[in-house]
Amino acid sequence: MNYCSKCGQPVRRETPAGDNRERDVCGACGTVHYVNPTVVLGCVPTWNDKILLCKRAIEPRYGYWTVPAGFMEVGETMAQGAARETREEALAEVEIGDLLALVDVIRARQVHVFFRAFLRTDQYGAGEESLETELFDEKDIPWDDIAFPSVTYALQRFIDDRRRGASDVHITAMGWPPTA
Amino acid sequence: MNYCSKCGQPVRRETPAGDNRERDVCGACGTVHYVNPTVVLGCVPTWNDKILLCKRAIEPRYGYWTVPAGFMEVGETMAQGAARETREEALAEVEIGDLLALVDVIRARQVHVFFRAFLRTDQYGAGEESLETELFDEKDIPWDDIAFPSVTYALQRFIDDRRRGASDVHITAMGWPPTA
Repeated sequence: MNYCSKCGQPVRRETPAGDNRERDVCGACGTVHYVNPTVVLGCVPTWNDKILLCKRAIEPRYGYWTVPAGFMEVGETMAQGAARETREEALAEVEIGDLLALVDVIRARQVHVFFRAFLRTDQYGAGEESLETELFDEKDIPWDDIAFPSVTYALQRFIDDRRRGASDVHITAMGWPPTA
Repeated sequence: MNYCSKCGQPVRRETPAGDNRERDVCGACGTVHYVNPTVVLGCVPTWNDKILLCKRAIEPRYGYWTVPAGFMEVGETMAQGAARETREEALAEVEIGDLLALVDVIRARQVHVFFRAFLRTDQYGAGEESLETELFDEKDIPWDDIAFPSVTYALQRFIDDRRRGASDVHITAMGWPPTA
């Protein structure tokens, strides 16, 4: 951040009164601009025993596989956002189930939230951000070509829970300490 | 947002190519400025059977009671943030336990995340953002003077679970549809 988004004048790094860390503060109007982590919503959509994955048509990780996931928008619940991402990326309608995993992705300044989900029909396809979408049997999941570690974690926990007949909530942190 | 935080020129509302909703886009450098919900981290800290609450010394809801909670910062996990807020607001050290509740607070554009927590000692006090802090017995919790509905929800779920010997994860949404 170089300029104040409210008044357009330059900002400087300083610790506001009553705060304990540096922020971007406007030298003209005094507005403090906070930067906070963003929420990424995803789900593991299933149809019978198969899992729906999308091959990414965008960077980062173009050509790698992921579950449907993306940034939470203002005005939606986490579950609605996870369903929306599935609609956009995999042209599929899902019923969102229970919470699967929360992942602190420190380096990316993100929190990833994954739900279990159920395809309402066997209709799906490649949305604008996907090269292709496919229902995978467990044994065929392309583990070496998964786009993000948090997705690998969510898929592993999902599969392990399903084998055990469990549906736990899993919490972990990745990318610590921050290196970028 | 009126001005581009990158180059200082005016922004306009438009739907970027490949997107499906209006954003603030810089008329000069083309930067798209996304606004996403923020994460609020809190916990229900206990000492034996008592629950630690803080009376707010800041707006909004000055003078009302809350559990320790505040905005997630870049570079911390959700659990670390919840412990940090307890340190700042209640001058107390906690061990963060399992996940208690996720609340979509639509109108405030926030996600509230609450953990169960355990005070490491019986030392606590009023931080800069608190008028006072107090350990409450269940029957003495000031239900009519709780600062936020999400905090009431988290406390109710915590107490109900504890009576049943359960420790579930609770998910709900509040402030829907958006009215402000």
